[in-house]
Amino acid sequence: MRITKRPHFIEFGDCDPAGIVYFPRYLEWFDAALQNHLRAAGLPKADIIARWGFVAFPVVDLKVTYSVPSTFHEGVVIETEMLEMRRSSFVVRNRLMRGETVAVESIETRVWAGRHPEDETKFKGMTIPDEVRRAMEDGDS
Amino acid sequence: MRITKRPHFIEFGDCDPAGIVYFPRYLEWFDAALQNHLRAAGLPKADIIARWGFVAFPVVDLKVTYSVPSTFHEGVVIETEMLEMRRSSFVVRNRLMRGETVAVESIETRVWAGRHPEDETKFKGMTIPDEVRRAMEDGDS
Amino acid sequence: MRITKRPHFIEFGDCDPAGIVYFPRYLEWFDAALQNHLRAAGLPKADIIARWGFVAFPVVDLKVTYSVPSTFHEGVVIETEMLEMRRSSFVVRNRLMRGETVAVESIETRVWAGRHPEDETKFKGMTIPDEVRRAMEDGDS
Amino acid sequence: MRITKRPHFIEFGDCDPAGIVYFPRYLEWFDAALQNHLRAAGLPKADIIARWGFVAFPVVDLKVTYSVPSTFHEGVVIETEMLEMRRSSFVVRNRLMRGETVAVESIETRVWAGRHPEDETKFKGMTIPDEVRRAMEDGDS
Repeated sequence: MRITKRPHFIEFGDCDPAGIVYFPRYLEWFDAALQNHLRAAGLPKADIIARWGFVAFPVVDLKVTYSVPSTFHEGVVIETEMLEMRRSSFVVRNRLMRGETVAVESIETRVWAGRHPEDETKFKGMTIPDEVRRAMEDGDS
Repeated sequence: MRITKRPHFIEFGDCDPAGIVYFPRYLEWFDAALQNHLRAAGLPKADIIARWGFVAFPVVDLKVTYSVPSTFHEGVVIETEMLEMRRSSFVVRNRLMRGETVAVESIETRVWAGRHPEDETKFKGMTIPDEVRRAMEDGDS
Repeated sequence: MRITKRPHFIEFGDCDPAGIVYFPRYLEWFDAALQNHLRAAGLPKADIIARWGFVAFPVVDLKVTYSVPSTFHEGVVIETEMLEMRRSSFVVRNRLMRGETVAVESIETRVWAGRHPEDETKFKGMTIPDEVRRAMEDGDS
Repeated sequence: MRITKRPHFIEFGDCDPAGIVYFPRYLEWFDAALQNHLRAAGLPKADIIARWGFVAFPVVDLKVTYSVPSTFHEGVVIETEMLEMRRSSFVVRNRLMRGETVAVESIETRVWAGRHPEDETKFKGMTIPDEVRRAMEDGDS
């Protein structure tokens, strides 16, 4: 499947009193990396919403392995790849790379969700459009 | 093992444009809940540092199950429990409860780490003191 | 005018590598304190929205004085008071108190804003309802 | 004085339930922009610490004007400029530009601070080195 590599610079404010990245911050970056992955595949969120209505990707399952800590003012690269596209959910892997080393790896299962027809404060899984499926399989960027 | 229950109020700024809690925020709350759990067991961080030097608890493995979304201005309860105390690491479970429902559950493996003796920017696993072990086993709060 | 005092506990993850609270965090707490102030006056956000439609309070002007730094695992108190209620905006002051000392003081001018009638991605100032005005003047809590 | 322009992309997770950037986030970006400004002037934080010991730049006074809201997946530019270099403090201005429009402007007074000699949990203003002064005046980047 398509892999997106995104340079990322670690800021002072992302780090905790131990001087290393505060661990939830990685998940914010990986979330942004997923959106970037969709854009790189020609599917910016605005277009997705214009075509298929309001869509969110709530995480239902998350596994993270933290192997190497990082500190501020380091440049790293985040690699994003879809591991699996199911009917109404998908599995995405993000890896924070320090050179050749995988410092942090996350595997997220997310639902392709729209507003619930009877309660707009709730979400409901929807079938992932074929166009999205194809875009995810379509080469590197 | 000892269980700590901590009331938590969800704020507007914790939620994303879909109107639900932005998923990394839960991990910030669970991190605070662990510190609270240690305090409730008579082990505030300041005392730990005073007795055993600078100690941090870097997460090495994290599994989260998000079952029910929450929105702002809801009161929830976070339940914290040590599942396992190993030689130099421990496994802690946090559950965000909406009444009787487990909305989010996290299982974190963390290292009991001090500054590396040869490189103070690095951390090194240390044997968890017996006093900490005992405090974790010592009834509810 | 009514003053609300809200205890606040500073967490490890709110602090930066210098070991003190990362300065934007205070503004998150003050934002939550404003919502708490409205609730204490009998105006929870959900009720406001139920009565007057979707309302947000975008900040247009912000002045903050940081006098004393704080670190993690300190208990402080946040005091909130409306300084001025204008036609469609208000001025709110938050003070982070360490005992008798004002450690941080913020003065925010915010607009009482609803969705723009012609463009729902935009906001538009609205006249603050008299009931809200009265609730803000109505004694301590 | 030297001006640094830094492209910035607004992420989904930076926005609140009203769909616009949560206002404290801008200050995180401006903080990073200041560090970037120092790097662009040949003064990365690591070099500063290597030459002059641990230095932090705590904010003592902050004024922000929010003129135009922004939403996620917008590309903006942050412009950073020192307005004034005093003996042991400086005034820095950050502007978030949407094209030619100043959407948010911040003016921060910060102290050039080292660890307090008698209490390492405290900070103390230090004379800003001449080399830093000169680097700030040294042309655009």
